[in-house]
Amino acid sequence: MKELKFIKYISKRPLFKGIGDDCAVLNYKKDKYLLATTDMIVEGVHFMKNALPYQIGWKAMAVNISDIASMGGVPKHALISVGIPRKKPMRYLLDIAKGVEAAARKFRITIIGGDTNASAKTVVNVALMGEVEKRLLLRRSGARTGDLIFVTGALGEGKRKHLTFIPRLHEARFLTKRFKVNSMIDLSDGLAMDLNRIADSSGTGARVCESLIPLSEHSDPLDKAIEAGEDFELLFTASIKESRKIIKRMGEDLPITLIGEIVAKKYGVKIIEESGKEKTLKSEGFRHF
Amino acid sequence: MKELKFIKYISKRPLFKGIGDDCAVLNYKKDKYLLATTDMIVEGVHFMKNALPYQIGWKAMAVNISDIASMGGVPKHALISVGIPRKKPMRYLLDIAKGVEAAARKFRITIIGGDTNASAKTVVNVALMGEVEKRLLLRRSGARTGDLIFVTGALGEGKRKHLTFIPRLHEARFLTKRFKVNSMIDLSDGLAMDLNRIADSSGTGARVCESLIPLSEHSDPLDKAIEAGEDFELLFTASIKESRKIIKRMGEDLPITLIGEIVAKKYGVKIIEESGKEKTLKSEGFRHF
Repeated sequence: MKELKFIKYISKRPLFKGIGDDCAVLNYKKDKYLLATTDMIVEGVHFMKNALPYQIGWKAMAVNISDIASMGGVPKHALISVGIPRKKPMRYLLDIAKGVEAAARKFRITIIGGDTNASAKTVVNVALMGEVEKRLLLRRSGARTGDLIFVTGALGEGKRKHLTFIPRLHEARFLTKRFKVNSMIDLSDGLAMDLNRIADSSGTGARVCESLIPLSEHSDPLDKAIEAGEDFELLFTASIKESRKIIKRMGEDLPITLIGEIVAKKYGVKIIEESGKEKTLKSEGFRHF
Repeated sequence: MKELKFIKYISKRPLFKGIGDDCAVLNYKKDKYLLATTDMIVEGVHFMKNALPYQIGWKAMAVNISDIASMGGVPKHALISVGIPRKKPMRYLLDIAKGVEAAARKFRITIIGGDTNASAKTVVNVALMGEVEKRLLLRRSGARTGDLIFVTGALGEGKRKHLTFIPRLHEARFLTKRFKVNSMIDLSDGLAMDLNRIADSSGTGARVCESLIPLSEHSDPLDKAIEAGEDFELLFTASIKESRKIIKRMGEDLPITLIGEIVAKKYGVKIIEESGKEKTLKSEGFRHF
């Protein structure tokens, strides 16, 4: 079963309304929303048997921090559930806890509760709550025709870095505080799928240029890189006027690249190959099923 | 490894402070706290391979609702993560979702987000947020010497009912709104362990009478019943003055039983057997490791 199919199914059920962005947005304080998100990482799917327990703990936190970041928010409180095989030594669980704690410390998150269980394979779930000033909230659905499309960092590094990546929290806050960003998502499932998510929820199309997409030196070929998940870079859009300001700041202190533009819905979501040929960018990213 | 040992370990680490009650308590509104809790249920530990998926979904919600109830609060928002084996049919996942939704509907909870994954065995994690009026908050640590000890319902039914139990939310709210309850916990790990938790965190001892403990007609013998987990009844204490009022309301509309009293710490935590002999009640309940 595909996660996408499940998400589509449950978002139609009344009780699951609101699913769509990386986090749920709840009323909270006069000038702030509460953000809430959850992600489970499972041995054999999100990390292999030989992954270091410290890295498993780090990743479980980092993927959730990335979700809060992509909404423009600041993570605050985490609930951690860990399932580990009975045969593992105490050391293994403690090292997972250390990875969780290191990420929590780095991003000033308080761990407010937890649950530990026996489990056939290692599984770590984090539920993370954060805050965002109402005027700084970013959603997938805010892209407008004419917006330019940007991405942070370089793509294609997921496979190498997914256990140790630094979520782009500082970059997301920098962007939302200084510029009027219209939409944002984190690249957890690959550029192809996540760009389609922005276009779908904004009711627009999108066009990116192959030659503009920044690939890491360790990247697979481009077609693999844009379908591979777990880059955890930020994909965002802004009006041309705002984009001019953003482009002025681009460079070393703001590692972002302009890769395309938001267009009318009827155009679809396409990539312009180096030959000039346009190709539809299907929403096929990394699938857990 | 024992969960108790891990909880003891992590509650000493600065980042895990605050663990101890069934939920974390966060500042929220002027007159309310935000409650947050998480529980993971795992195939082979919290349910067997042949459990109905609907019941798995129900239980995952119910154990978390029970945690919010035991703090005197009302559950509001849930984040659900599901891991299921790749070979399971779509139907299986949908039935888990239906169980989750049924519990959500019954207790007026909004499901605000979720995550689905492949996993070797079925695992469901719920992170649940709720609210409690500041004056109605109940903790484990509020028991005072001289308090009487009560329990809702009948014990020893965990094995039979753990997949279908109704969390005691209405009873908890009824109690905290109408009486000054000093401490409360839900019996997730058995009376022996959970009474020790109240005594430990309150800095008191406790004495319960074997002959007063209400056993269900389907119960194992008493010594098993008080060490078995997953009854999910409420254990609470109140001053003698308040207890008089509570006792007046006891009966069909308030299914509670008086089972003992809170005493000085030096006395320890004991059970008075029918013979009159006192026996230390060790904190050995249901262990996940």
